[in-house]
Amino acid sequence: MERHQPAGESAGSGEHRLWGGRVAAGPAASLDDLNRSLPVDQRLWAEDVEGSQAWVRALQGAEVLDAAEAGSLIAGLQRVAGRLAAGAAEDAHDEDIHTLVERLLYEEVGTLAGKLHTGRSRNDQVATDSRLWALRALRALAAAVRALQGALLEQAEAHLDLLMPAYTHLRRAQPTRAAHWLLAHFWAFQRDRERIVQAAERVARLPLGSGAIAGAGFPVDRNALAAQLGFVAVAENSIDAVGDRDWVAELAFVGTLGGVHLSRLAEDLILFSSDEFGYVALPDAYTTGSSLMPQKRNPDGLELARGASARLLGELTAVLALLKGLPSGYNKDLQEDKRILFTVVDTLQLLLPVTRETIAALVWREDRLAAATADESLLATDLADELVRRGLPFREAHHAVGRLLRIGEREGSPVTELAPERWAEAHPLFLQPSLPALSATASVEARCASGGSARPAVMAQIAQARAVLAD
Amino acid sequence: MERHQPAGESAGSGEHRLWGGRVAAGPAASLDDLNRSLPVDQRLWAEDVEGSQAWVRALQGAEVLDAAEAGSLIAGLQRVAGRLAAGAAEDAHDEDIHTLVERLLYEEVGTLAGKLHTGRSRNDQVATDSRLWALRALRALAAAVRALQGALLEQAEAHLDLLMPAYTHLRRAQPTRAAHWLLAHFWAFQRDRERIVQAAERVARLPLGSGAIAGAGFPVDRNALAAQLGFVAVAENSIDAVGDRDWVAELAFVGTLGGVHLSRLAEDLILFSSDEFGYVALPDAYTTGSSLMPQKRNPDGLELARGASARLLGELTAVLALLKGLPSGYNKDLQEDKRILFTVVDTLQLLLPVTRETIAALVWREDRLAAATADESLLATDLADELVRRGLPFREAHHAVGRLLRIGEREGSPVTELAPERWAEAHPLFLQPSLPALSATASVEARCASGGSARPAVMAQIAQARAVLAD
Amino acid sequence: MERHQPAGESAGSGEHRLWGGRVAAGPAASLDDLNRSLPVDQRLWAEDVEGSQAWVRALQGAEVLDAAEAGSLIAGLQRVAGRLAAGAAEDAHDEDIHTLVERLLYEEVGTLAGKLHTGRSRNDQVATDSRLWALRALRALAAAVRALQGALLEQAEAHLDLLMPAYTHLRRAQPTRAAHWLLAHFWAFQRDRERIVQAAERVARLPLGSGAIAGAGFPVDRNALAAQLGFVAVAENSIDAVGDRDWVAELAFVGTLGGVHLSRLAEDLILFSSDEFGYVALPDAYTTGSSLMPQKRNPDGLELARGASARLLGELTAVLALLKGLPSGYNKDLQEDKRILFTVVDTLQLLLPVTRETIAALVWREDRLAAATADESLLATDLADELVRRGLPFREAHHAVGRLLRIGEREGSPVTELAPERWAEAHPLFLQPSLPALSATASVEARCASGGSARPAVMAQIAQARAVLAD
Amino acid sequence: MERHQPAGESAGSGEHRLWGGRVAAGPAASLDDLNRSLPVDQRLWAEDVEGSQAWVRALQGAEVLDAAEAGSLIAGLQRVAGRLAAGAAEDAHDEDIHTLVERLLYEEVGTLAGKLHTGRSRNDQVATDSRLWALRALRALAAAVRALQGALLEQAEAHLDLLMPAYTHLRRAQPTRAAHWLLAHFWAFQRDRERIVQAAERVARLPLGSGAIAGAGFPVDRNALAAQLGFVAVAENSIDAVGDRDWVAELAFVGTLGGVHLSRLAEDLILFSSDEFGYVALPDAYTTGSSLMPQKRNPDGLELARGASARLLGELTAVLALLKGLPSGYNKDLQEDKRILFTVVDTLQLLLPVTRETIAALVWREDRLAAATADESLLATDLADELVRRGLPFREAHHAVGRLLRIGEREGSPVTELAPERWAEAHPLFLQPSLPALSATASVEARCASGGSARPAVMAQIAQARAVLAD
Repeated sequence: MERHQPAGESAGSGEHRLWGGRVAAGPAASLDDLNRSLPVDQRLWAEDVEGSQAWVRALQGAEVLDAAEAGSLIAGLQRVAGRLAAGAAEDAHDEDIHTLVERLLYEEVGTLAGKLHTGRSRNDQVATDSRLWALRALRALAAAVRALQGALLEQAEAHLDLLMPAYTHLRRAQPTRAAHWLLAHFWAFQRDRERIVQAAERVARLPLGSGAIAGAGFPVDRNALAAQLGFVAVAENSIDAVGDRDWVAELAFVGTLGGVHLSRLAEDLILFSSDEFGYVALPDAYTTGSSLMPQKRNPDGLELARGASARLLGELTAVLALLKGLPSGYNKDLQEDKRILFTVVDTLQLLLPVTRETIAALVWREDRLAAATADESLLATDLADELVRRGLPFREAHHAVGRLLRIGEREGSPVTELAPERWAEAHPLFLQPSLPALSATASVEARCASGGSARPAVMAQIAQARAVLAD
Repeated sequence: MERHQPAGESAGSGEHRLWGGRVAAGPAASLDDLNRSLPVDQRLWAEDVEGSQAWVRALQGAEVLDAAEAGSLIAGLQRVAGRLAAGAAEDAHDEDIHTLVERLLYEEVGTLAGKLHTGRSRNDQVATDSRLWALRALRALAAAVRALQGALLEQAEAHLDLLMPAYTHLRRAQPTRAAHWLLAHFWAFQRDRERIVQAAERVARLPLGSGAIAGAGFPVDRNALAAQLGFVAVAENSIDAVGDRDWVAELAFVGTLGGVHLSRLAEDLILFSSDEFGYVALPDAYTTGSSLMPQKRNPDGLELARGASARLLGELTAVLALLKGLPSGYNKDLQEDKRILFTVVDTLQLLLPVTRETIAALVWREDRLAAATADESLLATDLADELVRRGLPFREAHHAVGRLLRIGEREGSPVTELAPERWAEAHPLFLQPSLPALSATASVEARCASGGSARPAVMAQIAQARAVLAD
Repeated sequence: MERHQPAGESAGSGEHRLWGGRVAAGPAASLDDLNRSLPVDQRLWAEDVEGSQAWVRALQGAEVLDAAEAGSLIAGLQRVAGRLAAGAAEDAHDEDIHTLVERLLYEEVGTLAGKLHTGRSRNDQVATDSRLWALRALRALAAAVRALQGALLEQAEAHLDLLMPAYTHLRRAQPTRAAHWLLAHFWAFQRDRERIVQAAERVARLPLGSGAIAGAGFPVDRNALAAQLGFVAVAENSIDAVGDRDWVAELAFVGTLGGVHLSRLAEDLILFSSDEFGYVALPDAYTTGSSLMPQKRNPDGLELARGASARLLGELTAVLALLKGLPSGYNKDLQEDKRILFTVVDTLQLLLPVTRETIAALVWREDRLAAATADESLLATDLADELVRRGLPFREAHHAVGRLLRIGEREGSPVTELAPERWAEAHPLFLQPSLPALSATASVEARCASGGSARPAVMAQIAQARAVLAD
Repeated sequence: MERHQPAGESAGSGEHRLWGGRVAAGPAASLDDLNRSLPVDQRLWAEDVEGSQAWVRALQGAEVLDAAEAGSLIAGLQRVAGRLAAGAAEDAHDEDIHTLVERLLYEEVGTLAGKLHTGRSRNDQVATDSRLWALRALRALAAAVRALQGALLEQAEAHLDLLMPAYTHLRRAQPTRAAHWLLAHFWAFQRDRERIVQAAERVARLPLGSGAIAGAGFPVDRNALAAQLGFVAVAENSIDAVGDRDWVAELAFVGTLGGVHLSRLAEDLILFSSDEFGYVALPDAYTTGSSLMPQKRNPDGLELARGASARLLGELTAVLALLKGLPSGYNKDLQEDKRILFTVVDTLQLLLPVTRETIAALVWREDRLAAATADESLLATDLADELVRRGLPFREAHHAVGRLLRIGEREGSPVTELAPERWAEAHPLFLQPSLPALSATASVEARCASGGSARPAVMAQIAQARAVLAD
C-alpha cells in the first residue's frame, strides 16, 4: 500500500502531520523532542481507533459521510487496529497516536482517510480517548481493591478468636481481635471503592463532538455517540469539555488515598513482622535478602508499597499544580495528564496484587501474640470501668487506676502482685467486694457496642463486610 | 461555684487534666507549647457540647447514668455552652476544648461531671466533633458554590448574544458566546457541588462509641447516637473510626479542586480585564490601587483567589503526607487535621463571595469584543468546513486554508482582500461557486451540536443549568 | 495628635489608604476581607519602620529630603515604633502594615509623612521588610538547630560504649553504638545548618530602591541602603527584585527538609521507646496521657513533630505552586508569601526546642539493649567475613552462612548450639581452624573504616562533630 | 564463557541473586514485578562499574585482594562495561544493575567475581552510583542553564534601547527596556546555578565504605576512594550515609525552582506572543498547529515548559513525603529515589534547550511595542514625581494625579488633551511652571538608581551579567 501524502504537507520532511498548510517547515528538533507524545500516548491506540469508528458513524448520521465511505473507514480503522496490536506504533515517529492512526488509515484507505477528522479536533479526541481508557482502568482497579478486601476478610474470618494488643500512639492500648485489626483496613479500602465508582461517573461524560473549543461544526448526535462508546452523558459545554481535567485530578486523588491505605497497612505489617513485635511472619516469597548480611529477610514489598504511595502523592500534586494557573479551554500543558494517569494506575496495579498476596500468606505467631496480650497494662481501662460499675465517677476511677500503676512502679511489681493495702492506698473501692478476674478475653467481650471488639460485634461486622463485598 | 479538683490531680499545678494519675507532674513547657490545641480546636465548642449531650443520653440508655444524673449533666452542659458562647475559651489555658468543657462542667455540676467521660475517649470524641463541624461547613460551602453558579448563570442569560473569541493555547481559536464561556465555568463548579455532597456522605459516619480504639466498654446504642447527631450511619470498626482522617483529605481535595476552578476563572478574568484584551471591566470596588502608580486598578481579588488556591493545594499535600506513613489507629500526628480543615473551609469562604460578587458586577466591553471577534482568522475552520461541504476531504481542506493564509501573509493582506487568483492558488474549490458570506455569527450558529456555541444549544444548556441549580 | 487625611482620600470612609485618588470609593467588604493583610503582616512592624528609616536616609542622600525633614521623619518613625511595640496594631483596620505605619506617621509628623513614600512602592518595601525578618529568623533557626546538635553530641559522648542493634528495613542488621546512631542524626542537622547559611546569603540581597517594577525614580544609593540594613548586596534587577520569592521557596525547602529530619528522628524514638523495642524511656515530662486509658504514656511531642513536618511540606508545595504559573514582576498572589514564611519558621521554632530537650532527657535502658544486642543473627556478616579471611570469596561465604542459618531454623536451634557436623554441612571452612569468639563488641570494632562503628572511628567522628559545632 | 552459579543459589531458578542462601526459593512474581529495579537503574551501569573498580583498589589497599586478583577484577569489569555499553542490560532480567554487573563479572572472571562484594553492601553501593551520576548530571544542567542565560543576555544586548511596558498585576505599570525584562529572567537562572553548585557540594560526599549500615568490615581507605571517584569528602557516618537522600530532595528542589523560572518565562512569552499583546513573534519552528483550525500557531513548547514544571513539583513532593515518615538507616522505600532523580534531570534537559532556542529566535515586534509604550497611563508616576520635584509630598502628588486621571475618564479624554483648568482642578502645581515633556524614554532614564531601567543602569547590569556568566 502506497504512502499517501496529503496536499500541502511540508515537502522535505516526508512526514505526516495533522497541520502544516500554513507553515513552511516542521518544528525544531528540540521542540519535537519535548512535544512528541507518541511514546506515552500510544497506549491509547485501541481507544483512539474505537473513538474514531464511533465518530465515523456520527459523521454518517450527520450526512457528512455516505454509507460506503463510512463502511470503508470503519473497516480501514479495523485494519489499523490490527497493525497497532501487532506493534506498528513501536518504531513510529509520529507526533502522537492520533497522527499515527490517521497516517496508517491513509495507508489503508487512501485519500478517504482525510474525511475522518471532519468536525473533530485532537482536543475533544484525546479527552475522549483518555476518559475511555480511564473508565476501563477504574473498573480494573475496583476489582483489584475488591480482591484485596477479600483477602483481608478471609484472614479475619480465619482468626476471629485470635487476640492481639490494639495500639494508639504506637503504645499498647487495649486487647482486641486480629480480625478486628484486619477489618479496620477492610473499611478503608471499601471507601476507596466507593470513591472509584463515584469518580467513574464523572469520567463517563463524553467530550467528543466539542470540536477544538467552540463545538462541532456538523450536526452530530452526541447522545448516540455517548451510548455507543459507553459514556453515561455528554459533556454539557464544549469549552469545559476540552479543558476539563478534573477527572484526572480526582482519579489521582482517589488513587493517592488508596496508596495511603496501602502504606498504612504496610506500616502496620512492617512493625508486626519485626523482631521486636513478632506478631506475624512473612513467607519467604514476600521478603528479599541482603547482598551483605546473610540473615536478612526484608519486607521489601511492604516498604515499596509505602514508598510508592509517595509517588502517587507526587502525581496528584503535579496535576493540581498544573491545572491551577491555566486559563479555561485547552492549553498544551494538559498533555502531561496522560503520564500522570498512567503512572497512577500502573503503580496501583503493581501494589494491589502483591499486597493482597502478602495478606493471604500472612502467618500469625500465636505464641508472641499471647505473650503480648498478657501484658496487664492493657487492662487498666477495664479496672477503671469496674470502679465505675461500683459507683465511682469515671474521672476519679481513671485517677485511682493511675495511682495504682504508679504504686506498682514504685514497688517494682506488677499490680496483680501488689498487697491489698497497696490497692486500698490507690482506692478503697478496689477491695469491696473483691475484683472479678480481669483478662484480655473479658476485656474484648466488654467492648460490646457495635463496631467494638466483642465477638458478636465482630461477627456482625464480618457479615456486613461480606455484604458490601458482594455488591 | 467552687473549682473542683478530681482526686489524683497533680497538686501544684492547680490545673484540670483528663489524665495524670500515673505521672507526678505535667508536661514540660516546650511540649505544652506544641501540644496544647485549644487555640485551634476551641472552634469546636458547640459540637463538643452537643456531642457530649448526646453521649449523656447514650450512657443513660446503657444504664450507666440514671435519669436525674443525665438531666443534670445535660443542663450543666447547656450552661457550659452559654459560657463558651460568651467567650469563656478566650483566656483559658486548658490542653484542648474537651478538657475545657469538662472543667467548666465540673464548675457547673461538681463531681457528677466526672461521669461524663465514661466509656468515651478523646479519640472518638474529637473525631465526632470535627465531623459534625465539617458536615455543617460542607453545607455552607455547597450554598456558597451554588450562589457563585447563580451569578455565572445570570450573566450568561444576560449576554446570550454577545460574541467573543474562544481561546486555545491562549490564541484566538473560533468565535463563541460570552454566555458559553460563563457556562464553561458553571459546570466546573457543578462538579464541585457533586463532590461536596458525596464527600459529606462519607463524613456523616459516626465515630462516637468507639472508645480509644477497641470499642466502647458500655453497651451504648450507637445507631441512636448517630440519629440524634444527624449522622447517616455508624463507623463500622472502632480501630478505623479513631484513626480515619480520609474524610479530611477528601474535603481538602474537593476544596482544592474548587480552588483550582476559582483560579482558572480568575486567570481568565485577569486576562480579559487587561489593557490588551479589554473584554471586561472590573468595577472599582473589585480592584485596588498602587501606593506608587496613580493610574493603577489592580485585580487584587482575582490574584488573591489564584494565590489562595495554592494554599489549598498545600493543605491537601500536608494531610496526605501526614497520613501516609502512619500505622493504623490513633496517632497524635492526626491533631494537625483541624488546622487543615479550618484553613480549607475558611479560605473558600473568603474566596467564594468575592468571586461571586465580581462576576455579578462584571461589565462587558462590547466594542472591544466586537473588534476582536471581527478577526478573520477566527473563521479559518469555517472556510475549511465549507470546502468539506464542497466535497473535499477535511484534511485537504485544512491544508488548502493553511495555504491561503500563508499567501495572505506573503502578500501582507487579509485573505478577504486577496484577488481570486490567489484563492485559486490555494485551492480551486474556493471559487466554485462563490463563497457564502462568512461571519462570526454564522460561525457560532454552525456549532449546532449539543454543547456547542449555537444559540439553540446554549439555550438548552442554560435550561439544563437552571435545572441543576434548583436541585 | 490630630488625624490627618491626605487630599484625595475618599471622604466617607475616614480611612487612610495609600491609593485612592483615582477611584471614588473603597473596596467592597468581601474584597477587603480577602485583601487586608494586616493580621498577618503586622509582625513585620519593626522591619517596616527600620526599612523606612533607612529609606529616609537614602532620600536625603538623593536630595529629595533635607536634613531637617529627614530628622523629623526618623524621629517620627521612632515614635511610631514605640506605639507599635505597645500594641498599636492590635485594633487597627488598615490594609496592611505599610499603610498603618504611614497613618501613624501622619499622626506623628503631619503632612511631612507624605514625603516618605517618594520613589518607593509597597512592592520593594514589603520584599525588603520580609527579607529582613527572614534574615533574623534564619539566624535564630541556625542557633536552635545547633542547640539540638549539641544535645545529640552530648548524648553520644555520654554513651560511647553503649551497644545497640543497627536496623535496615526495620530489621536487625548489625551491632553498632548508640553514639553512632545519635551522630547519624547530628550530620543530617549539620547539612540543614549549611543550607540555612547558604539560603541566608540569597535572602540578603536588597530589593529596596526598585520602585514598583521599573526602578526607583530618584537617584538613591542602594549600596548604602544595603549596608545600613545589613544586606550583603543589592538585587541586580528591579523587575526581578519585586517579583522574586525564590528565597521564600528556598527557606520553605530548607525548613521542610529540617522537618523531615525531625520526623525521622521522632520515628526512631517512637519505635525505640515502644514497649516492644524498649531501648529508651521518655521522661514523663515528655509524654502525655490518655483521657480513657490510665496506663498510657504517649510520645505526643515526637508524634507532633512527625505530623508538623507534613505541615512544612504543605507550605513548600503551596509556595512553589503559587509561583509556578505567574508572569514575571509583582502579582498580588505573592501576598501569600508571608503566611508561608511565618508558618515555616514558627513551626520549626516549636519543634526544635522540644526535640532538643527530649534528646537531652533520654534515658537508655541498658538491659533491653544488652538483650537485643545479644541476638546472634546480628553477627551473620561477621561469620561470612571470617570465611573471607579464610580465603573464601565473599559471595560464597554469604551463601554458606545463609545455609547455616537455614540449618539452624530446620533444627529449631541457635546456630551457636548446632553440632559441628551441621556447621560442616553449611561449609567445611567453618571448622578449620575453630572459629574465634564472635561478639557484638568484636563486630563493632571490626567496622574500623572511617565513618564506621569502631571505637576509634566514632571518637574521630565526635571530634569532627565538635569542630563543626564550634564553627 | 560459562555461566557460573555460586553455591547456595536456588536451584530451579537458574538465576543469579546476591542473596538467597537462607531462603529456599525466590520472590513471588508479584513481588518481583514491584521490586525489580533494573529497568530504571540500568542507567547507572557506567557508575556501577566505575565504583566497583575503585572498590577493587580499596580492597587491594586493605589487603583483601592481592594485586593479581585486583588486576583481573578491574580488567573483567572493563569487559563488563563494554558489554553493557553494547546493550547487555536490555534483555536482562536481573534484580538490579548491581546484580547484573556481578553476574556478568562471573561470566568474565569466574569465581573470583565473588570477591568483589567483600565489605560492601548494595546500600552503600547504590548511594555511591547515584551520587556519581548526579554529580555529572548537575554539571550538565549547570551548562544548560548557562547556555540559556547566554541567550537571554545576547537578546538583551541586542535590544538595549527597545522600550516596552513593564507590568505589575498584569496591568501596565511603567515603561522599561526589553533588555531589562530579559535580564530579570537572567538573574533568576543565575540563582539556579548558584544552588546547583552548592547542591553538588553536598552530593559529593562518598557513601562507599559504609557497608550495609554499621561501616565497612575491612580497613579500606575511604579518603583514597573519594579522591579516586571525584568526591570531595567521605560521608561522616555510615548509618547516615546509607539512609541519606537529602541530596535527592535538594536536587529535586533546585530543579523544581528552575522549572518555576522556566514556567514564569514561558508565561511571559505566551502572553507577549498572543494576538492581544503582540510584542514578540515566535518563529514557526517553535510553534505547532491545530488538527482542526488552519490558522493556528500555538506556543506548545512554552506551554509544555509550564506544564512540565508541575511534574517537577510532583517529584519534589514525592521525595519529601517518602522521606518524612522513615526511620533512620536504609529502607527499601528509598529505591524510588532513582526514578525521581532521572525524571527531574531528564525533564530539565528537555526544557532548557528548547527554551534557549526560543529565546534566541524571538522576533520583537517594534511597532506593537511602540504603540503600547505610548500609553499615557504609563507616565502617571512620572507626573507625580514631577509634582514632588515641585515640592509636593509624594502622597499628595499621587492623589493629585489620581484626580487628574479621574477627570480624564469623566471627560472621556486623554489627560494630555485636557484643558488647563482641568489640570488645575486636579492640582494647581501641574501648571506652574508648565510641565516638561513627558515620554517613555524620559521615564526609563529617570529610573537611574542601580538595578533600574535607565540606560547606564542596564549597561552596568549587562556587564555584571557577562561577568557572572564567565565564572
